[in-house]
Amino acid sequence: MTTPKGFLFSAVKAKFKNWDKEDLGLIYSETPCSAAAVFTTNRAKAAPVLLSMKHIKGKTHRAIVANSGCANAGTGKPGYQNALNTALETAGRLKCKREEILIASTGVIGMNFSWEKLLGFIPELTTSLKPEPEGFTRAIMTTDTKPKSASASAIIGGKKTTVWGCAKGAGMIHPNMATMLAFIVTDASASKAILQSSLVEAVDGSFNQMTIDGDTSTNDTVFLLANGAADGTPIKSGTTDYKKFATVLAEVCRSLSEQVAMDGEGVTRLADIFVEKAATKKEAVAVARAVAGSLLVKTALHGGDPNWGRIICAAGYSGVKVDQDRMELYFGEYCAYKNGVPTDVPEKTLAEEFTKKRVKMRLVLNMGKAKADYLFTDISHEYVTINSHYRT
Amino acid sequence: MTTPKGFLFSAVKAKFKNWDKEDLGLIYSETPCSAAAVFTTNRAKAAPVLLSMKHIKGKTHRAIVANSGCANAGTGKPGYQNALNTALETAGRLKCKREEILIASTGVIGMNFSWEKLLGFIPELTTSLKPEPEGFTRAIMTTDTKPKSASASAIIGGKKTTVWGCAKGAGMIHPNMATMLAFIVTDASASKAILQSSLVEAVDGSFNQMTIDGDTSTNDTVFLLANGAADGTPIKSGTTDYKKFATVLAEVCRSLSEQVAMDGEGVTRLADIFVEKAATKKEAVAVARAVAGSLLVKTALHGGDPNWGRIICAAGYSGVKVDQDRMELYFGEYCAYKNGVPTDVPEKTLAEEFTKKRVKMRLVLNMGKAKADYLFTDISHEYVTINSHYRT
Repeated sequence: MTTPKGFLFSAVKAKFKNWDKEDLGLIYSETPCSAAAVFTTNRAKAAPVLLSMKHIKGKTHRAIVANSGCANAGTGKPGYQNALNTALETAGRLKCKREEILIASTGVIGMNFSWEKLLGFIPELTTSLKPEPEGFTRAIMTTDTKPKSASASAIIGGKKTTVWGCAKGAGMIHPNMATMLAFIVTDASASKAILQSSLVEAVDGSFNQMTIDGDTSTNDTVFLLANGAADGTPIKSGTTDYKKFATVLAEVCRSLSEQVAMDGEGVTRLADIFVEKAATKKEAVAVARAVAGSLLVKTALHGGDPNWGRIICAAGYSGVKVDQDRMELYFGEYCAYKNGVPTDVPEKTLAEEFTKKRVKMRLVLNMGKAKADYLFTDISHEYVTINSHYRT
Repeated sequence: MTTPKGFLFSAVKAKFKNWDKEDLGLIYSETPCSAAAVFTTNRAKAAPVLLSMKHIKGKTHRAIVANSGCANAGTGKPGYQNALNTALETAGRLKCKREEILIASTGVIGMNFSWEKLLGFIPELTTSLKPEPEGFTRAIMTTDTKPKSASASAIIGGKKTTVWGCAKGAGMIHPNMATMLAFIVTDASASKAILQSSLVEAVDGSFNQMTIDGDTSTNDTVFLLANGAADGTPIKSGTTDYKKFATVLAEVCRSLSEQVAMDGEGVTRLADIFVEKAATKKEAVAVARAVAGSLLVKTALHGGDPNWGRIICAAGYSGVKVDQDRMELYFGEYCAYKNGVPTDVPEKTLAEEFTKKRVKMRLVLNMGKAKADYLFTDISHEYVTINSHYRT
């Protein structure tokens, strides 16, 4: 997979947990980068999030340090100091400013953790940098069954420009951690403002349109670093170049979010809910989220039961002014419900649509022109098993 | 169990499903009643709800007809006509106005159903009325393992006055139906306005503080009928009598909601989340609801894992401005988290609290003086099993 020019990666097996894989990683840019970030909206934020929220305000950035095994959340002031020490040590080794280092952690909340051990691995991390990202993509995995990365390229500012990213999952997908991390790097040349607006847009169309179990983690973080090494003209707002960049960035984010959803140990089936003809975008999103978040819809999905009543019901309690007599519900190409009553499409036909590996649900509200979609997963026995005893 | 004066009950085995129990019931008052009601906030409302919302506007009421086996939801205009016919037939037999009849249904959404059969049982229903309510309490059961009823008495308006009610469950408790119905009758003398305000208050403090799986049904209904047969002075607003009436009514609602929660086939453990020292009542409710509704908290509860991090995390994403360094979290009498970090109370001690049949969680926000509490249940494998294949 193509990675952007000028980025190097490293990873070590620090054994923060009893596993045989990399669990501490570094992404480094040979030249200073512009950076943007999206953080968890949870008010209980992990120490690395609190620190990175400060650092991201700086003008340039050079590196991302990430660990798996401990979330450094619910750890108070000592935890914050540990995150700070990690940034300080890394900055010292890389000969840059502390504020140029971004930090992310994933793991159990409130867990004790040997930060001295982590700091001891920073020298190895900073001296083993290489162009291949595979070790880093494994270092952020927790219960992920495989690393997740994606890349896309386009001619931007007159030069071939690449966007590459990797991610780890969240929620039922990765119940031990419940954290979603994504790190995206590009050799495009763009200001902080350009990066931030395109990142927010891309995240809204991918990670924010995916629901696993409705829990928002203390650690969720998406970073975007651009070092300009492709040597293209800087991207300006409102230009064709901006559109092209936003498109490849969105493509990478969408691919990563789908990989996250698909890699659930507990997940047996995915579904897309497309809400159409809503009065406003906000209402379309609210209805899609209600359907995607409904435990009754998720369990019906698990059982492959085309239970249209639960979907109409979820739309009804979404808070949006829907009209049960105007709604139309489709599974694949088949209409299950219209004019306030079920259609005469045979149950068997609907069941066939509902037992596919990825089920397409389309709910037409007939109230306006807005639309939204959500990707979601079923709820399985395994989800309950894993989450009932994740620490014990 | 004491029932109020002047109310009669009947029930028949109409065999709307392949079961050997009553499934069509009638509550009748010998004299005209004042009535109040609380209906589902779901915009997709079942036909009996739409009809009863009109009827409840009338001045007096005489009877409630309820059936189990079919929800009469997602049935469009024909379904509405069927509900109307049920009210018409019952009113004809009882020699009262159609608007004096209230209707409720519970069962599968969108299911075909023989309404002619139902109408055929109305004569038997209206001629077999008796003071014992047991048949009626069974008639509204679906997957409930036992009937649920409660009663309380007090001297109100100078006379012994009784409030009696029965209920069927919802959501994971009763996944095949996902409907909560409660019918409450009293021999108090009170105006419609008095009944409505005391009912809303009682429902807010009971059924609305209980969360099962977050799905709000198309059929949820609570009716309150008062016939004045105790012969007490009419209850006036702001009086001691009002307070006494509100208290016994709340007691009955609370008991019914607890019975509903406890009777879950899939439920293995209950929990109360008490949120204290919130800035406002609204914020206290929002935090309690976020914790009670978190799938990660519910699965931790199932496993008896005192996973305080998930509770702090849920408070964090509740939308309320909480401060992770000011929150205190208690399991029973033991403090698990304070000052942004876990306390040194041994895990074993916390686990003992977390494996009780009813777990007490207390989250002190230290932001103000408001408080709220929620009753909730765990999420078990059986919940997933039942809801994956409820129609098949």
